Amino acid sequence: MPRFRLTLEYDGTEFLGWQAQAAGARTVQGTLEAALEGLLGTPAGVTGAGRTDAGVHAEGQVASFAADTSLEPRAIQKALNGRLPADLAVVACEVVPSAFDPRRDACSKHYRYALWNGPERSPLRRRHAPLVPGTLDVAAMTRAARAFEGEHDFASLQSTGSSVKTSVRTLLRCEVQGVAGGEIRLDVEGTGFLRHMVRALAGTLVEVGQGRRSEGSIPALLAATDRSQAGPTAPAAGLTLVAVCYPGVPGDSVANPGV
Amino acid sequence: MPRFRLTLEYDGTEFLGWQAQAAGARTVQGTLEAALEGLLGTPAGVTGAGRTDAGVHAEGQVASFAADTSLEPRAIQKALNGRLPADLAVVACEVVPSAFDPRRDACSKHYRYALWNGPERSPLRRRHAPLVPGTLDVAAMTRAARAFEGEHDFASLQSTGSSVKTSVRTLLRCEVQGVAGGEIRLDVEGTGFLRHMVRALAGTLVEVGQGRRSEGSIPALLAATDRSQAGPTAPAAGLTLVAVCYPGVPGDSVANPGV
Repeated sequence: MPRFRLTLEYDGTEFLGWQAQAAGARTVQGTLEAALEGLLGTPAGVTGAGRTDAGVHAEGQVASFAADTSLEPRAIQKALNGRLPADLAVVACEVVPSAFDPRRDACSKHYRYALWNGPERSPLRRRHAPLVPGTLDVAAMTRAARAFEGEHDFASLQSTGSSVKTSVRTLLRCEVQGVAGGEIRLDVEGTGFLRHMVRALAGTLVEVGQGRRSEGSIPALLAATDRSQAGPTAPAAGLTLVAVCYPGVPGDSVANPGV
Repeated sequence: MPRFRLTLEYDGTEFLGWQAQAAGARTVQGTLEAALEGLLGTPAGVTGAGRTDAGVHAEGQVASFAADTSLEPRAIQKALNGRLPADLAVVACEVVPSAFDPRRDACSKHYRYALWNGPERSPLRRRHAPLVPGTLDVAAMTRAARAFEGEHDFASLQSTGSSVKTSVRTLLRCEVQGVAGGEIRLDVEGTGFLRHMVRALAGTLVEVGQGRRSEGSIPALLAATDRSQAGPTAPAAGLTLVAVCYPGVPGDSVANPGV
C-alpha cells in the first residue's frame, strides 16, 4: 500500500489546532481526513510532524497517510485542494517509503514568531503578528536570543503540566530581526520542541526588549528549570510552523521518489 | 467646531466597501460613524478620501469629520479604537483647518495590488494576494507598467457605466516588482483614479506577464479608449489603499496642528 507525504499550508485562525481535543472541533487533521475519505471512499488516518495549537499557522506542516490507491501524487494534491476549505491547502504531495513517519523522521523544525511593534493595533496584521506596543530594544533581543542556541534543558520554557521524559532540546538557530515597518520576527530552528516553548521564548524575549529583563539573564533562566522564571506565553496568532526538514538518504529519496 | 482628520487601516475582507450601497450593509464609513456617534452622543458625518470597493483594504485611508467636542485628538483615537471592531483601526488623528476635505484636498493616492504567483493556492495569502498560477514574465510586466505613467486618457481601464466628466488622469508611478517567494506587487500612485482602474491595470499587466499581450501594446490600448481592449478586472482582495498625500502648506499645517 503506497504511502504519501503531504506538505500543508494553513491559516490557523479558524482551526482549533492540528489535533482534535474534543469531538466536533474543527481541526486541521480532521478536515484533512474528511477530504481524504471523500476522495478515496474509505477512511485513511493522517499523522502530522507537529501538533500545532489552536490559532497557530503553517507554511510547511508535513503529514502522511497510506492508501490503497492508484492515483498519482499530483492527482491526489489537485483533488484534495478541490475538497479542502480556503484556509487549508496541500502545497506538495509525494510518494515515500512505507516506513516514513513525519514526526519521528524529522531532523528539525523551523518556527517563526512574528509581532507588530507599532503605535496602534494593526487590522491587517492581526491574524499573524500580535501587537506589542511601546519601545522595544531589538538589538538586545537579538543578542539575548543567541543564548538559547545549542543543547539546553528548556524546562523553564515548558508549559506546566507537560509530561515528557526529558526537557533537554537542541536549538540550531534562535534569531531575532526587525523587518520593514515595525514587524519583528523570531526564527527558531530545533531538533525538537516542548509544548508552548517557542511562544514562551517569544514572551521572554519581549521582556528583554522592554528592558524588564536583562539580555545577559538567559543562562540563569535556563539553569533555573522553573517555568515561573520565564516570560508569558505569547499569543498563538504570531506563530507559524515554517518548515519541517528530513535528513540524508530518506530525505533525498522522498524528494526524488521516482514515481 | 473643530475638524479632525483620521488615518484608517482596515482589512477589507469582511466590509462591503467604504460606502453603503444598500441599507444594513457593513461598511467602513457606517462602522466608523456608529463608533463616533457612540463616543460623541450625536451623529457626525464622515467623508473619506477614496471610496474603496468591497474587499479592498487600506493601510492609510484618510477620513474627516467635524464635531463639537473638547476631546484631544489622541483621546478620540484611543476611544474610537476601543469601540471599533478588530478589522478597523484609527492609526492617526489630528486637528485640521475647518475647510479640510479629504477627497478634494488630496494631491495623490498610492494603491498597491498584490498577487501570488505560486504553484498552488496559498491559504496564508488568500486575503491579500489572489493566486495567478503559471509562469509570469515579471520583467515584461515591469517594462509595460511604465507606459501607464504620465497623463493619459484612461477610458480603456474604466468600468463600463461610469459617468465622470473626463477620463484623463495622471499616474506619477506605475511599478511592478517581484518580492520574496513568488509574490508580485504593483504600486500605482496618481493624482486621481477612475472606478476599478487599478484592478483593470493589474488584470492587463497579468496578461502581459502571461505572454497573451505584448509589452509594447500599452500605448495602443490607451489610444483605443475602449474598456473591452484591456484585461479583466483583477479580484478586489489584492488591492490596498496604501496612502493619501496632501500637499504643501495645508499638509504641513495638518502634520503640525499645534494643539
